[in-house]
Amino acid sequence: MVDQSHPYVPRDLNLPGYIPCFLSQTEIITPYLGCSVLVVAAIWLISGRIGKITKADRLLMCWWAFTGLTHIILEGYYALSPEFFKVNTPHYLAEVWKEYSKGDSRYVGRDPGIVTMEVITAFLEGPGCLLAVYSIATKKSYSYILQFAVCLGQLYGCLVYFMTAYLQGDNFSTSQFYYWAYYVGANFWWVLIPSLIAIQTWNRICAACQPDKKKTK
Amino acid sequence: MVDQSHPYVPRDLNLPGYIPCFLSQTEIITPYLGCSVLVVAAIWLISGRIGKITKADRLLMCWWAFTGLTHIILEGYYALSPEFFKVNTPHYLAEVWKEYSKGDSRYVGRDPGIVTMEVITAFLEGPGCLLAVYSIATKKSYSYILQFAVCLGQLYGCLVYFMTAYLQGDNFSTSQFYYWAYYVGANFWWVLIPSLIAIQTWNRICAACQPDKKKTK
Repeated sequence: MVDQSHPYVPRDLNLPGYIPCFLSQTEIITPYLGCSVLVVAAIWLISGRIGKITKADRLLMCWWAFTGLTHIILEGYYALSPEFFKVNTPHYLAEVWKEYSKGDSRYVGRDPGIVTMEVITAFLEGPGCLLAVYSIATKKSYSYILQFAVCLGQLYGCLVYFMTAYLQGDNFSTSQFYYWAYYVGANFWWVLIPSLIAIQTWNRICAACQPDKKKTK
Repeated sequence: MVDQSHPYVPRDLNLPGYIPCFLSQTEIITPYLGCSVLVVAAIWLISGRIGKITKADRLLMCWWAFTGLTHIILEGYYALSPEFFKVNTPHYLAEVWKEYSKGDSRYVGRDPGIVTMEVITAFLEGPGCLLAVYSIATKKSYSYILQFAVCLGQLYGCLVYFMTAYLQGDNFSTSQFYYWAYYVGANFWWVLIPSLIAIQTWNRICAACQPDKKKTK
């Protein structure tokens, strides 16, 4: 028996026990944006009290804190909650993924590629992001290579995310709105920003690894 | 109609037009090992003629040449040949993948996660490996970070490879022999060696990025 009482595409996706969203789109997105602004503001203010740290590095700390908490809390919940679509209370994290699945039903359908990518993102890259915040604040020698490694992980994850969708027919969105707002729009930032940071850290590492410097090791 | 004239597991995998292997296991593996030994020997001898290059770096050049050519030729063919299992001549590269699929039928079944991982491996990491050979020989400042980046890509690919199989039920091998020889045995080296190189390059980059050195930039 195929349960089609859900809003997701493809329509023949079978989700026995599915409970619809309790919260509206606004009620789901506003707390996420609000908490993100609070985190960014807190990191910006706290990092301003650390001596000799550039504004660019303070911005990086804000990004790493924001993306790290997103990975650990939102994506960590997803990775550990295969039955989030059955949650029959307005549990905020379950609501997030019920809503996001309108842009990509492979989430609610528990596609193995999605689950793999989310496990790596939540449990390897997430802590890596928070360590990046600390490494920038304390000017650790591993700061650049750590940031580069996490960026590469995020970019590999995005490649897996978009390429597997393309190979599977790219038909997982409830509507064009959700396709562009969630599937493309939300993920776009995790392509753009890690690309920029990866290029910057690559260049800084190359500058530090000039042959004349290597000899002094 | 399900065509079950193939040797792969799960048995209900549908491969219309499948043509069995023409070559034996020995006839497939021997040329691969033979060519690999030739490549490694050639790189070892040529790199010995370059002044001031350590034996460890010469070994790294051998590895990068071997793995780069494996990625580009073998995995590049796979990525571009969705119908290799229908090839009705003893085409060596088609035979390789008909044989390897006995260890992991997701290859012949064109699993989207496998195809994605192989496309990234063949077309991004493969050229990266050959560039690593060049960068070590010419002592480029990007040598460490490039090697680190390719290792991280290989390790992410292996994680995707093994985790998706686990999530899909881990039942893609024709027998226990193929499971351990091909699925585990062949891939083990691409977990072990990239891990070792990633740790080594991480340490060297950290040494080059000590705060006192960064100030001289």
